[in-house]
Amino acid sequence: MSTLCVPSQVPSVAEDCEQLHKAFSGWGTNEDLIISILGHRNVAQRKLIRQVYGETYGQDLLKALDRELTNDFERIVLLWTLDPPERDAYLANEATKRWTSSNQVLVEIACTRSPKELLLARDAYHARFKRSLEEDVAYHTSGDFRKLLVPLVSSYRYGGDDVNLTFAKSEAKLLHEKISEKDYSCDDIIRILATRSKAQINATLNQYKNEFGNDINKDLKADPKDEFLAILRATVKCLVNPEKYFEKVIRLSINRRGTDEGALTRVVATRAEVDMKIIKDEYQRRNSVPLDRAIAKDTTGDYEKMLLTLIGHGET
Amino acid sequence: MSTLCVPSQVPSVAEDCEQLHKAFSGWGTNEDLIISILGHRNVAQRKLIRQVYGETYGQDLLKALDRELTNDFERIVLLWTLDPPERDAYLANEATKRWTSSNQVLVEIACTRSPKELLLARDAYHARFKRSLEEDVAYHTSGDFRKLLVPLVSSYRYGGDDVNLTFAKSEAKLLHEKISEKDYSCDDIIRILATRSKAQINATLNQYKNEFGNDINKDLKADPKDEFLAILRATVKCLVNPEKYFEKVIRLSINRRGTDEGALTRVVATRAEVDMKIIKDEYQRRNSVPLDRAIAKDTTGDYEKMLLTLIGHGET
Repeated sequence: MSTLCVPSQVPSVAEDCEQLHKAFSGWGTNEDLIISILGHRNVAQRKLIRQVYGETYGQDLLKALDRELTNDFERIVLLWTLDPPERDAYLANEATKRWTSSNQVLVEIACTRSPKELLLARDAYHARFKRSLEEDVAYHTSGDFRKLLVPLVSSYRYGGDDVNLTFAKSEAKLLHEKISEKDYSCDDIIRILATRSKAQINATLNQYKNEFGNDINKDLKADPKDEFLAILRATVKCLVNPEKYFEKVIRLSINRRGTDEGALTRVVATRAEVDMKIIKDEYQRRNSVPLDRAIAKDTTGDYEKMLLTLIGHGET
Repeated sequence: MSTLCVPSQVPSVAEDCEQLHKAFSGWGTNEDLIISILGHRNVAQRKLIRQVYGETYGQDLLKALDRELTNDFERIVLLWTLDPPERDAYLANEATKRWTSSNQVLVEIACTRSPKELLLARDAYHARFKRSLEEDVAYHTSGDFRKLLVPLVSSYRYGGDDVNLTFAKSEAKLLHEKISEKDYSCDDIIRILATRSKAQINATLNQYKNEFGNDINKDLKADPKDEFLAILRATVKCLVNPEKYFEKVIRLSINRRGTDEGALTRVVATRAEVDMKIIKDEYQRRNSVPLDRAIAKDTTGDYEKMLLTLIGHGET
């Protein structure tokens, strides 16, 4: 379900590195050449390119890109080139430092990645920041948000499909009780969302709908302006319906006065190789416009080219 | 600092398996033979024995031991034979199911293992119980205990030595404030103990002592009967002084009417290959009796033999 297009004949890593080095040399930078290489290599290939580039030219490829590129184009190329766990660590660190109660990036990273991927991101966080992710989240957040976010980023959920239907029933009831009492930040809601496996949560929320008639997220919308409720809804969506969550992030990033490039860049860079095909379908269904057309309308230049490349524009 | 004695010439795995199989055959069980083999093999060797035994005789070695042995001797041989992450998963599961507010096994596992070891235990928990450790802890505990235990077992601390002295000072002050206010289960105390690295916590507690005169655990003893305070003290001890913590567990397990075999077995089985030498020294210093003499006085039979074997009795 990746939208990345890797040519059937990929040049050798040494050639790729040489071409990239050429793209940085002389007057100006050859952005098209950079896109044509990095925009068409998968995660293992990019990792190898970065390694061989460093060995050949004595400089980290990311440093070179950072020096040559600017603005949104720079950001998407850098994020894309980073290894996924490092990228998540970087995004999570940025989110903790600039944290506000409307920032949902931590929820996104904690809940849309697989348990193993989240763990690798926590490993990368140790290596890069010499602290743990949960340590920084706990330090920079407070109150109910901290109560939810720390267990979410610390979770190492069971990743299998085994589901306990007795728990699903009893916990659907428990969730409904607590939501009816508007006790949204209670221990039980947080415990269930932060520790149960995704399969188990899905079963519980299906029970919820069967038993009480509404999607839980509908019941979590009592006050549309309440930011804690918003983050709870994001948590639920990221856990059981990540593609819909990402479609909405893209939709909101485009459908506003001035594009939110930060969000658009993040979603494209992190999902292109994962589930961007489904997100694109979801986008078209919800907006009646293909995602590539919406992006082309809202962005320009090399940034636009890189986004379209990563979402597989013009490929069949 | 292990007390395990592995002979310089170890028989082949096939021979070990054959001998074990022989020990189970015929009338009665040859316990001495079992001790002489399993009590003198390191973790990698035991793992291989279990694997080859299963392949050769079509039965899990643990199942065979379970059938042949009984009581405390059975328990120590089983715990010892388990791979450490599986053993921790097993002990943690037992502790959640039988959880009471005086049960400190979860704290022990969460805080005396390295961050990586705790993670492996969580992995083993997934594999064996089809749920996550934090999920079961959250489900079986409540109130302040849950507030502390869930982040402790979910932690994946930074494992390096880098320390931030500014934080150490400010957080020592914060801890002292909260303890003075008797706000023991506040977010800050739990955040610091559950997320900071062991090196960082050590630095903070040194600052605490320098600045405020007392060991933090002295200040956490305002009410010696308060079980939440007791678990906070255990947390601190497990994090910064695990050998002293284990010495005390052993001391209390022996110095009471009727030995607490559960605790004694657990500590010997989990620490023999880790830091039992230091725990033994600590024990002798604190009790003026060598640990092996104390154990020999309080236990009997094959159980005694196995304990003494694992703590290196009679070895130089």
